[in-house]
Amino acid sequence: MELVETSRIMWTPFHESTLAAGVTAVTVYNHTMLPLSYGDPEAEYRRLTEGVAIWDVACQRQVQLAGPDAGDLAQILCTRDLSQARVGQGKYTAMVDHQGRLINDPLVLRADDDVWWLSLADGDMLQWCRAIASERQMSVEVSDANVAPLAVQGPLAEDVVAALLGDWIREIKFFNYHRAEVDGIPMRVGRAGWSKQGGFELYLEDATRGNDLWDLVMAAGEPFEIGPGGPNAIERVQSGLLSYRTETTDDTDPFEAGLGKYVDLEASDFIGRDALIEKRERGLQRSLVGVVFDEHPGVLKNPWPVMATGQVVGSVRVVVVSPKVGRSIGMAMIDVPHNVPGTDLVTSSPNGEWSITVAALPFV
Amino acid sequence: MELVETSRIMWTPFHESTLAAGVTAVTVYNHTMLPLSYGDPEAEYRRLTEGVAIWDVACQRQVQLAGPDAGDLAQILCTRDLSQARVGQGKYTAMVDHQGRLINDPLVLRADDDVWWLSLADGDMLQWCRAIASERQMSVEVSDANVAPLAVQGPLAEDVVAALLGDWIREIKFFNYHRAEVDGIPMRVGRAGWSKQGGFELYLEDATRGNDLWDLVMAAGEPFEIGPGGPNAIERVQSGLLSYRTETTDDTDPFEAGLGKYVDLEASDFIGRDALIEKRERGLQRSLVGVVFDEHPGVLKNPWPVMATGQVVGSVRVVVVSPKVGRSIGMAMIDVPHNVPGTDLVTSSPNGEWSITVAALPFV
Repeated sequence: MELVETSRIMWTPFHESTLAAGVTAVTVYNHTMLPLSYGDPEAEYRRLTEGVAIWDVACQRQVQLAGPDAGDLAQILCTRDLSQARVGQGKYTAMVDHQGRLINDPLVLRADDDVWWLSLADGDMLQWCRAIASERQMSVEVSDANVAPLAVQGPLAEDVVAALLGDWIREIKFFNYHRAEVDGIPMRVGRAGWSKQGGFELYLEDATRGNDLWDLVMAAGEPFEIGPGGPNAIERVQSGLLSYRTETTDDTDPFEAGLGKYVDLEASDFIGRDALIEKRERGLQRSLVGVVFDEHPGVLKNPWPVMATGQVVGSVRVVVVSPKVGRSIGMAMIDVPHNVPGTDLVTSSPNGEWSITVAALPFV
Repeated sequence: MELVETSRIMWTPFHESTLAAGVTAVTVYNHTMLPLSYGDPEAEYRRLTEGVAIWDVACQRQVQLAGPDAGDLAQILCTRDLSQARVGQGKYTAMVDHQGRLINDPLVLRADDDVWWLSLADGDMLQWCRAIASERQMSVEVSDANVAPLAVQGPLAEDVVAALLGDWIREIKFFNYHRAEVDGIPMRVGRAGWSKQGGFELYLEDATRGNDLWDLVMAAGEPFEIGPGGPNAIERVQSGLLSYRTETTDDTDPFEAGLGKYVDLEASDFIGRDALIEKRERGLQRSLVGVVFDEHPGVLKNPWPVMATGQVVGSVRVVVVSPKVGRSIGMAMIDVPHNVPGTDLVTSSPNGEWSITVAALPFV
C-alpha cells in the first residue's frame, strides 16, 4: 500500500542517506518514518545474522527528563528499580499506567546526573510524562531530546564501530552508553539494539549531521560488507523480542507480555505498582507465546483469531517464515490453559484455517 | 513509498470495503490506516466539491469519558466552555498541556448525560486523559469507545444521508449528533466532517457491521453518483482547515494555529489556562497563514524553511495545486512581522528556491 508523505510524518536526520541507499518499504513509528527494507529481504536478513547492517532507527524518539526531580520522575514512570543506575547505564523497562496496563517498553538511560532519556517504542509518551510531571508539580523539564539513534547490528557490528570510534568500544557493556565524537559529530555509543545478533546504537546528538554519520559508518563498514536494513521481523520473532502494539493491545499487562522480569514490585514506588501487585496475586490469565504452523499461511496484516474447540482463545499477532526453524512461526497472545507449549490450536486467516502448535519463546 | 502492513497499525471496520473499492494510497493516523486515495485524485476532488464522497475516517478514534466526573474531566481537558453543552451537542476544541502547548484539536461531544467523546486528531490522548483522571482521582472511566466514524461529504451528502436514514436528518444542526439505526446497525449521525463542502459523519457503534454500513451508504448514494475518497488536502488547504501535526509542532499554541476563537479563557478552568493567559498577554510571535506560489514547486514531503533577507522566519508545512486559486498554494507558520498578508518571502525546497506571497486563510 502506498504511503502518502506529509509534514505530519517526519523523516529522520538520515533521510537522504536512506533514499540514496534505495529504501523501498517503511513503517510509521512515533510519527516518524522507519525504513524497513531496501528491496532485498534475503540479503538484509543474512547481513544481520552473519555480517553487519546499518539501520535508521531515529524513530526511537528520546524523551528527556532533566532537572532536580528527573531521577524521581524516571522511577515513578518505570517498573524497574533505578536507584542504583549510574550515568551511562541503561535498563530495559516497562511503563504502565495507574491500572497496570502496558503503555510502553523503553530503554531508560541515565544520560547525566540529572538527565534521563526514555528510548521509546511507538507511543506518545512525551505527553504522558509531561502530564505526570506537571500534575505532581515536579521540578523537571520534559522534552524531546532530538537525539537520533542509528543502529549497527550483526556479529561484525563491533568491528565496524571499533573501526569508526576505536577499540575502546569493545569494552562497552550491554545497555551501557558512552560519549563519543567523530569528525566533530557528538553522540553516545551504546551496546544495544533491537536484535539478538549483537550490535551498537549510535545516539546522534547533532541532527544536522545525520548523513555525515551514515557515510562514516558505511566507510568504516566497507571492509565488512556492511549494508542497509531495518528492524527485522524474522530475526526478532525467532529471538522472541516483543514489539509493543504489534503483540499488545490497550489492556495488556507486562506479565502477559513476557516482561515480568523487568517489573521490580519490591523496589521503590512507581505508577501502577498496586495494580500489578493485584494482577500478580490473581495470576496470569493469558500470555505471549510462540506458535509454529504446519503449513505456510501467507502474510499476516492484522491479527488472526485463535480457536480451541470452537471458542476464541487468543490471536496470532505476527507471522514470519523462519530460516532457523524451517517453518512459518509467529507470536500469539493465548488464554490459559491453551498457552502451554505443545498445545495444538487452530487459527483462521482471510485465506483459510491453519493448524498451529504453541511453542516457548525464544524459538532459537 | 511502500507501507509494510502489520498488527501494530490497525485496519478499520470498513477495511474490506475500502480494499474492494480499490484504495491505492493511505496514511497512518492514530496507529490506524486512513485511506486517502482510490487512484483518481481529480474525480475524488470533484466528488467532494460538486457531488458526494464516502470516507473511511475510523482513525478519528473516540476517547470516551464515562462516569460521574466525566463532565468535569472534559472541561479540564478542553479549552472550550462546555458548561452549556446538551446531550448530542459537539464542539470543536483545542486541548493544551499545562504549558499551553497544543496537544490535539478534537470535536468534543456530550454523547450522554455522563458520557463524553473526544474525536481525536493524530495523538495518543487516551493516555493523556487517563493520566489526568488518575492523578486527580476522578470518578470516571477513560476508554477507547470503539466507535468508527464514516464520513459522507460534499454538497449532495445530505440527500444521501436522508435517503439512508430519513428526511429528519435535514434538520440536524452543525456539530450535533443524533442516535440512528439502519438494518439493526447502531450509530450516531452528526452534521460534521473535515471539509467545508458540507456533510455528515456516521459514528458506527457496532464495529462488526462496518462493511454493511458502507454498502448501505453506497446503495443510498448510487443515484447521486457517490464514490470513495478521503480527507482531501487540496480542499482543506483552500478552506484553511488545520491539520494537527502537519502545520503544528511540539511547541505550537492554539493562538498561533488559528484556534484562538476556540479558547474560552474567561470560562471555567482547564489545564493550561494560566499559560494561555500569559501567551495572550505577551502577544502573537508567529501564526499560521496561507502562502501563494509564483510557480509550481512540486510535492512537499517535509517542511520547507521560509526566508526573509537571509533569515529563517518560518516553514511551509503543506503545498497543493489549487483549482480554485489557479496556483500552487500552501499553509505556513511564519514569524511576525512577516506573517502579514501581501508579504513577499522565499522558501527553499529540495528542488530550488520559490517566491511566495503571504495570504489570509481561508483562501476561498
